[in-house]
Amino acid sequence: MSEVHAVRRTRLRDCCNAGGSAAALVSRPANVRYLAGAAPEGAVLLLGGTEDLLVCVGPPDDRSPQSRPDEALRVHIVPGLGGDAAVAAAGLAAAQGVDSLAVEEHHLTVTRHREIHSVAPRLRLAGIGCAVEQQRIVKDEEEISCLRIGAEIADQALGELLESILVGRTERHLALELERRLVDHGADGPAFPTSVATGPNAGRPGHRPTDRRVEEGDFLSVCLGATYRGYRCEIGRTFVIGTAPADWQIELYDLVFSAQRAGRESLVPGAACRDVDRAARHVLDSAGYAEALPMATGHGVGLEIDEDPQLTPAAMGKLDACVPVTVEPGVHLPGRGGVRIDDTLVVRPEADGGPELLTITTKELLAL
Amino acid sequence: MSEVHAVRRTRLRDCCNAGGSAAALVSRPANVRYLAGAAPEGAVLLLGGTEDLLVCVGPPDDRSPQSRPDEALRVHIVPGLGGDAAVAAAGLAAAQGVDSLAVEEHHLTVTRHREIHSVAPRLRLAGIGCAVEQQRIVKDEEEISCLRIGAEIADQALGELLESILVGRTERHLALELERRLVDHGADGPAFPTSVATGPNAGRPGHRPTDRRVEEGDFLSVCLGATYRGYRCEIGRTFVIGTAPADWQIELYDLVFSAQRAGRESLVPGAACRDVDRAARHVLDSAGYAEALPMATGHGVGLEIDEDPQLTPAAMGKLDACVPVTVEPGVHLPGRGGVRIDDTLVVRPEADGGPELLTITTKELLAL
Repeated sequence: MSEVHAVRRTRLRDCCNAGGSAAALVSRPANVRYLAGAAPEGAVLLLGGTEDLLVCVGPPDDRSPQSRPDEALRVHIVPGLGGDAAVAAAGLAAAQGVDSLAVEEHHLTVTRHREIHSVAPRLRLAGIGCAVEQQRIVKDEEEISCLRIGAEIADQALGELLESILVGRTERHLALELERRLVDHGADGPAFPTSVATGPNAGRPGHRPTDRRVEEGDFLSVCLGATYRGYRCEIGRTFVIGTAPADWQIELYDLVFSAQRAGRESLVPGAACRDVDRAARHVLDSAGYAEALPMATGHGVGLEIDEDPQLTPAAMGKLDACVPVTVEPGVHLPGRGGVRIDDTLVVRPEADGGPELLTITTKELLAL
Repeated sequence: MSEVHAVRRTRLRDCCNAGGSAAALVSRPANVRYLAGAAPEGAVLLLGGTEDLLVCVGPPDDRSPQSRPDEALRVHIVPGLGGDAAVAAAGLAAAQGVDSLAVEEHHLTVTRHREIHSVAPRLRLAGIGCAVEQQRIVKDEEEISCLRIGAEIADQALGELLESILVGRTERHLALELERRLVDHGADGPAFPTSVATGPNAGRPGHRPTDRRVEEGDFLSVCLGATYRGYRCEIGRTFVIGTAPADWQIELYDLVFSAQRAGRESLVPGAACRDVDRAARHVLDSAGYAEALPMATGHGVGLEIDEDPQLTPAAMGKLDACVPVTVEPGVHLPGRGGVRIDDTLVVRPEADGGPELLTITTKELLAL
C-alpha cells in the first residue's frame, strides 16, 4: 500500500508545482488519510521542499494496519502540549527553505491561516483548491473492493433485520440494531448515522430516528452504510409493514423505483452528472412531485460518505469509469410518509457490463 | 426557553457592538444552537442590524422541541439548491444596511470568508473571537440539569454492563452495548464514541474499541457519556477482570485514584485551571509517570464534549461557579495497560457543598 500513497503524493506535488508552489499542506482528514494511509487526530501532511512529513500532535496509533501511516513517511510529533499541527508544519516548511506553500483554503480556518502567517511571515500562502478531492473521485480497484465489502456488510445487516419482527419496535432501536449488526459483520462502524423512518417519517432524507414505533400499514424506510477500511457505502430501501400495501403505496413506490432505475441506467462513463440527476428527477417531476425533491439525487462515496461528484441539477462535470456514486431519489409526502430507494454503484463502461451494483438487496416492494 | 436564547443573543450583540460591529454571523453549530435553540444542518445565525435571522439551507426539522428553533427568531431559507447559509446571511446583512459584520474566524474557512467578501464587498468583516464559547462556559441551572440527567443515564448504562458477563466479549461489542443502553435510558445518543479498552489497551486516552476480547486478569477501562437535550457528559472507570487484582494493578489504581481525587478537591470557584491540572498531574509526576501523562487532565463539557475551560499546564484563566468540567487523569503503560478515572463535576462554592459530582458510579477498584 505504501507505494500507492507515494504515487498519490507525487501526483499532488506535480499539481502544486504546476501552480507555482514548492510545497503543500494537506489538513482535511480524509485527504490526509488518502495521501498518508492514516489520519491521526489533528495530524496534517506536509509535502515539503526536501521531505514529506506527517505532522502529528501526539504519537500515531499504529496497532492496526488501518491506523498505521505509510511507512515511507517520516512522522514529526509537535513538541509540547496543545500544539497545532498545521502551524507547526508551516514552520517546518519555512525551515526547509520553502517560499510558497499551497494550503487547503476550503478547510483551513481564517484564524489558523493567520497563525501560519505569523509563525512563517515570509512564506507565501497559496490555495491548493480541491486538488486532493478531485484526485479521490476515481477509485482504484483496491478502494472499490473496500466499498464492495462494505456494501456486502450493509446488505447482510439489512437482510437480518428484515427477518426479525418489526411491529412495535421504535425507530431508534431498529437503527441501533442495524449498527450493531454492521459491526458484527466486520465493519469499522456505521458510515453515517443510520436512518430508520416509519409511517409519516418514511422517505424523509436524513431522518433521525425517533421513538415512534413501527405500525401495521406503515411505510418503513431504512438507510444505512458500513465503513470498511475507511471506505463508506450507502444503501436505502423502503418496505411496507403488513400483509398488503395500499394502492397509493404501490403507486408511489413504483414511481420512485422508476426514477431510481432511470438514474442507475444513465450511469455511463462520459455522462454529465446533471443528466444522471435529470434522468431520475424527470420521472418524479412529471408525476407532479417537483416540490418534494431533495437537492441531490446522488453523490460520490469513498473515504467520506458524501464526496464529489454531486448528482444535482447544477452539477458540472462528467462521470468517469471507476467512480462510485449513490443513486437515491425519494419522495416524502408530509403527514403520509414516502419512499426512498438508494444504491451504491460503480460507473463502468458498457463493455464491462455497465454500472456495477454494490448494494444488492432486492428492490421489490416487500410487505413485512 | 425562548427568553433564555433572546438574553444570550442580547449579550452577544452587546459584545459585538462594543467591538465596533453592528452585526454578527454565528456559524459554529454548537454556538448556533446555544443562541437559537437549535442548529439545523448548515444553518447560521445572523444577529442583524434590524432583525435576527436563522438562515437555513432547507426547512428546519421542527417535530421535536429539541430540534425546533426559538420561535422568536425568523427563519430564512436560502432559495435554490446547494446554497450556502453563511454567504447568504452576509448578503442579508448588507441588504439591512450593516457595514461591519463580526464573524467566527476560528470556524469560517478561508474560502468561505472570501466568498462572503465577494458577495458583499462593502461589508467590513471583523472577528468575533470566541465570544460565544466564552459565554457558554458558565452554565445556568437548566443546562446543568440536562448534564445531570445525562450523567444519570451514563451511570445506569455502565451499572448494567457491570452486571453482565464480560470475559470473552470484544471491546467493540461492549461499546455498542453501552451505546444501546444509553439510548434505552433516554439519551439522544452517545456524547462521543464510547471507548472500551482491555488488557494492554486499558488506560489509553481516546482508545477506539478493537476486536480484542476481555480476558481474566485484564484491566478494563471504559469511557462513555450521554447526550441529553444536546448536553454532553462523560464518565470513565477502570476495573479488573477476575477474582483479585494483581499488586501492580492495585498500586497503579490507587495512584491514579489519588491524582483524580486531588484534581476534584481543587475544583473551587476562583481556582486557576492550571492549578487544578497541577494538583492531579503532580501526584502522577512524583510517582515517575511524567511521560505517560496526557495533555489535559480535564476540560469543560456542555453542548460539545470538549469545550473551555481546558485543565492543562498552560491554561490561562480561573474556574467560576457553575462550570461543569471533567477530571480525568490516567496512566497507560505500553504493553501492560493502565488506568483512567474520569468524572464530570460542576464547580460550586464551598458554602453550597463544594464540587457537585454528576457521575456517581463507584470509584472503588471493582474486580468483575
